Amino acid sequence: MGLALRGMDEDDGMEPFRIALAQVNMCVGDLAGNAARVRSRARAALEVGADLVAFPEMMITGYPTEDLVLRRSFAQASQAALDALATDLASDGCGSLPVVVGYLAHDEGARNAAAVLHRGAVAARYYKHHLPNYGVFDEARYFRPGMRLPILTSSGIDVAVTICEDLWVDGGPFAVAGQAGVDLIVCINGSPYERAKDDVRLPLVQRRATEAGATIAYVNTVGAQDELVFDGDSMIVGPGGELLARAEQFEERLLVVDLLIEPGHCRRAGPIGPMTVSRGTLPVDDDAAQRTRPHLPPVPHFQPMPDLEEVWGALVLGLRDYVHKNDFESVVLGLSGGIDSALVATLAVDAIGADRVYGVSMPSRYSSEHSRGDAGDLVDRLGCHFDTIAIESIVAAYLDTVTLTGLAEENLQARVRGALLMGLSNEHGHLVLATGNKSEISVGYSTLYGDSVGGFAPIKDVPKTLVWKLARWRNSAAAQRGETEPIPANSIAKPPSAELRPGQQDSDSLPDYEILDAILADYVDRDLGHRELIERGHHPETVAMVLQLVDRAEYKRRQFAPGTKISLKSFGRDRRLPITSRWRETVES
Amino acid sequence: MGLALRGMDEDDGMEPFRIALAQVNMCVGDLAGNAARVRSRARAALEVGADLVAFPEMMITGYPTEDLVLRRSFAQASQAALDALATDLASDGCGSLPVVVGYLAHDEGARNAAAVLHRGAVAARYYKHHLPNYGVFDEARYFRPGMRLPILTSSGIDVAVTICEDLWVDGGPFAVAGQAGVDLIVCINGSPYERAKDDVRLPLVQRRATEAGATIAYVNTVGAQDELVFDGDSMIVGPGGELLARAEQFEERLLVVDLLIEPGHCRRAGPIGPMTVSRGTLPVDDDAAQRTRPHLPPVPHFQPMPDLEEVWGALVLGLRDYVHKNDFESVVLGLSGGIDSALVATLAVDAIGADRVYGVSMPSRYSSEHSRGDAGDLVDRLGCHFDTIAIESIVAAYLDTVTLTGLAEENLQARVRGALLMGLSNEHGHLVLATGNKSEISVGYSTLYGDSVGGFAPIKDVPKTLVWKLARWRNSAAAQRGETEPIPANSIAKPPSAELRPGQQDSDSLPDYEILDAILADYVDRDLGHRELIERGHHPETVAMVLQLVDRAEYKRRQFAPGTKISLKSFGRDRRLPITSRWRETVES
Repeated sequence: MGLALRGMDEDDGMEPFRIALAQVNMCVGDLAGNAARVRSRARAALEVGADLVAFPEMMITGYPTEDLVLRRSFAQASQAALDALATDLASDGCGSLPVVVGYLAHDEGARNAAAVLHRGAVAARYYKHHLPNYGVFDEARYFRPGMRLPILTSSGIDVAVTICEDLWVDGGPFAVAGQAGVDLIVCINGSPYERAKDDVRLPLVQRRATEAGATIAYVNTVGAQDELVFDGDSMIVGPGGELLARAEQFEERLLVVDLLIEPGHCRRAGPIGPMTVSRGTLPVDDDAAQRTRPHLPPVPHFQPMPDLEEVWGALVLGLRDYVHKNDFESVVLGLSGGIDSALVATLAVDAIGADRVYGVSMPSRYSSEHSRGDAGDLVDRLGCHFDTIAIESIVAAYLDTVTLTGLAEENLQARVRGALLMGLSNEHGHLVLATGNKSEISVGYSTLYGDSVGGFAPIKDVPKTLVWKLARWRNSAAAQRGETEPIPANSIAKPPSAELRPGQQDSDSLPDYEILDAILADYVDRDLGHRELIERGHHPETVAMVLQLVDRAEYKRRQFAPGTKISLKSFGRDRRLPITSRWRETVES
Repeated sequence: MGLALRGMDEDDGMEPFRIALAQVNMCVGDLAGNAARVRSRARAALEVGADLVAFPEMMITGYPTEDLVLRRSFAQASQAALDALATDLASDGCGSLPVVVGYLAHDEGARNAAAVLHRGAVAARYYKHHLPNYGVFDEARYFRPGMRLPILTSSGIDVAVTICEDLWVDGGPFAVAGQAGVDLIVCINGSPYERAKDDVRLPLVQRRATEAGATIAYVNTVGAQDELVFDGDSMIVGPGGELLARAEQFEERLLVVDLLIEPGHCRRAGPIGPMTVSRGTLPVDDDAAQRTRPHLPPVPHFQPMPDLEEVWGALVLGLRDYVHKNDFESVVLGLSGGIDSALVATLAVDAIGADRVYGVSMPSRYSSEHSRGDAGDLVDRLGCHFDTIAIESIVAAYLDTVTLTGLAEENLQARVRGALLMGLSNEHGHLVLATGNKSEISVGYSTLYGDSVGGFAPIKDVPKTLVWKLARWRNSAAAQRGETEPIPANSIAKPPSAELRPGQQDSDSLPDYEILDAILADYVDRDLGHRELIERGHHPETVAMVLQLVDRAEYKRRQFAPGTKISLKSFGRDRRLPITSRWRETVES
């Protein structure tokens, strides 16, 4: 794990408060492993002379834990792990270092909690006040909100701890902390990645810091959990709104910063706003007060990545963590020569290395020569494993046995390929990757149990137009590094086709992808109705056609594999629509 | 729709208040159709001289509408449909009849709302106060709670309207209505079926009635929506807790009852408890006051059905409504000769008729003679369509092309069958029924994209031991009616087997189903942890084995078809667990 240090000018004689933010990758349910991560990072923070180290939301349990919260045994184990961690930290020599850590508590109901561990015990507890219950979040299902804000004085600095959503709501714990006169607000987060969300986070932290008149230390998880990627983007913002430090996205980091904080004089306790404020002190050990600390070199403020690089980082991390955290050694996917499978294969190679990626070409009589050639070209560039299995004889065996025509015959080819991939998965232990993109999945342009098979769908939330952009970006990034461009130019340039019948092209049955994706962004991601869609300039007939396709494909999506969320609204926990529904925007409104 | 009437002794000269409860089957999103249902039932209520008629929760939109609520166009359409309905009711001659109807409102946020329609307009609105956000419910995701309780005086009677969850929570609108001195509380519901839930409903309604000192008129939806079945069970309970009438389950009904209510004298308004009470009057038309009304014959109080009959009713209705509301004409399923497919075929025949049910036997070299015979026997008894497709040559074509051994070869057979069923579905438009039961799905004893294929899984929430009980019950019910027993005795009696290798039996890899189902009920349905499971007397080694199987099968369940919920906790919206999880009860606790 990299160590990012930032020094301040210490010549004015004021002793700085050295804070460490541990942007770490934990795993849901791995209580022992997550506690071990805390111990190793706390030790590192101690070694650089930190006065406090903070870990993300639900550090002990991982996040989100979903219905595991309903199991009392799980909450009990979380609390036991927290208590053991406090003792272990003291045994490790970290007892004098205040450690802020998220965990699952059970106190008159389950709580999304933060503890300050100090001297082998829990010095303070905070329960998340604002519980998000929209999008992918179901926290009102799980947690009771906390109504108390403890403030701890440490090295003369008044510190409050808050959790994630608390930051996003006006008039909550941040306002209370401001009125109570705290100097430093530590905010621990499990804030999932969405495109451009980092553009919102910094101004929000800045606003809260200036409102509260306090420094905000924002630490976020990094890593992936099923459909969610946490991008890190931990940061520290001063009471004037100045950005003091910001960590890289998609990497584990220990961000260490010296804060020159002049303790405030307003020190209120008791009921403030919606909460009650209590106060306590973390005594500083004599040896800690007298230690000499390493000088921190200045660190750059990392800027969030440009959009395409950031999306790529999210997709790579999402896939890598799904593979690793579910204990797979390798992945397998069908390579058609088209852009979707080429992009997924490239993501897989970036995520887990070419020697763990198995590509399979499964040509039929309708597969063009260029498709076979493009698939071969791709694997030559990537250096991954490759096999070819012709499906003709298997398809013929089905058709000798049962009469299937038209769409049924087209789908049969896709299902033969799906069964072959699953067979290879069963035989060799590979995770099967589904290569469907968001545009296809939206309109149901895929075969259930055919090309849709797979345990994970890396580009499930990537619209087709973004697939092409990412492919071009990835090639150009390779070219800039003097590496081989991984994706064959022909796969990017040629018109997309499922190749399930002679001469078939996507454009036979779908509008141009630029037009389709614009409608989907408004209908799927933004939930606009028919009138609003027309007002946005979309063509009425195209809107009618697309909406009908989207509505009718709900049953297919329900059975689709999980995949990394990158958009405002992904398919999965994020968008919950009935299958049985007679609502049609174009008919009723 | 049947008409259930109940007369009271009218000899004391008091004019009874005649209430009608419309237990109806609406469809999500079918705003026009649902409004038409209200009009036809309101007309029927008028014709029997009702003073008020009440329809279920979210009558206009169907329920639950899930993320359709997030679309403003949908809420606007609901409100427009409500306003049009008020006008249409007046045009129909029903203007003088107060009609209580549930709908989706948008008023500083979305609301789960009830309106009282009268004289062509909305006379009062109520917004649901308690929003369930557990189990299958996500109402905190969608709705703002209402804080006002309007009370309307109609024919001298003070009436309040409440919605579903309001009934289940202490100290809410029912307590407020009681303190305000109302005579009649109309409670409109979308309360999904669970086994034995009706045993809880009646005592609860009785408790609320006595607490409030008011009559409660409880009307529930009947019909199915994706995984939920609404069983009806509408009822009326007097202020002393006496059950005055109760409607049949699983059938549409108009329950009409004469209430002899002595108007109360306590008439408070203003802030009471958590809510604010307002008062209004519904003027009675002269002609209505002078009309002569038909005498109501006494009706029996329907008892809830015995458990197995009730479960059967729920499964039949769940399947029938999924087929009809999604516009399928027919279903297809694989018939193995085993008990699961036999039970699903029988359910399908009961739900939509034998001429719409297509059974397919797909024997392999491992299929026993008795399996083929039992499948044939079943279709002879049911009278449904039947076809046989041997899979041997297709399996051979795969194995000529790719090396698959052991489990991979076993799964291949299941996937060939799955592809054949899907091919028949594509060719003929049948809905494919998955025949997996809850025990199998819990432990992952199924092949993804193999025997698990299907758009609907009728016995997904039925444990194997209950599968046998239902089969025996269905046969004995047939025998009692002098009909042919639909399920071959041999399918019930023989040891279960997947028949994917020679001599295979379920008991090779799973504990006895009595033991397995008992553990699953405690672990899956009740969320007990390892220590509690051992305390309940389950064998530690069996618990360890079963929990590992359940935990590892989460990815399969995520891609499984929806199926009717009958238990405390079904797979689907009801149980939301991460796929990526290292939590193991037996390791950590």
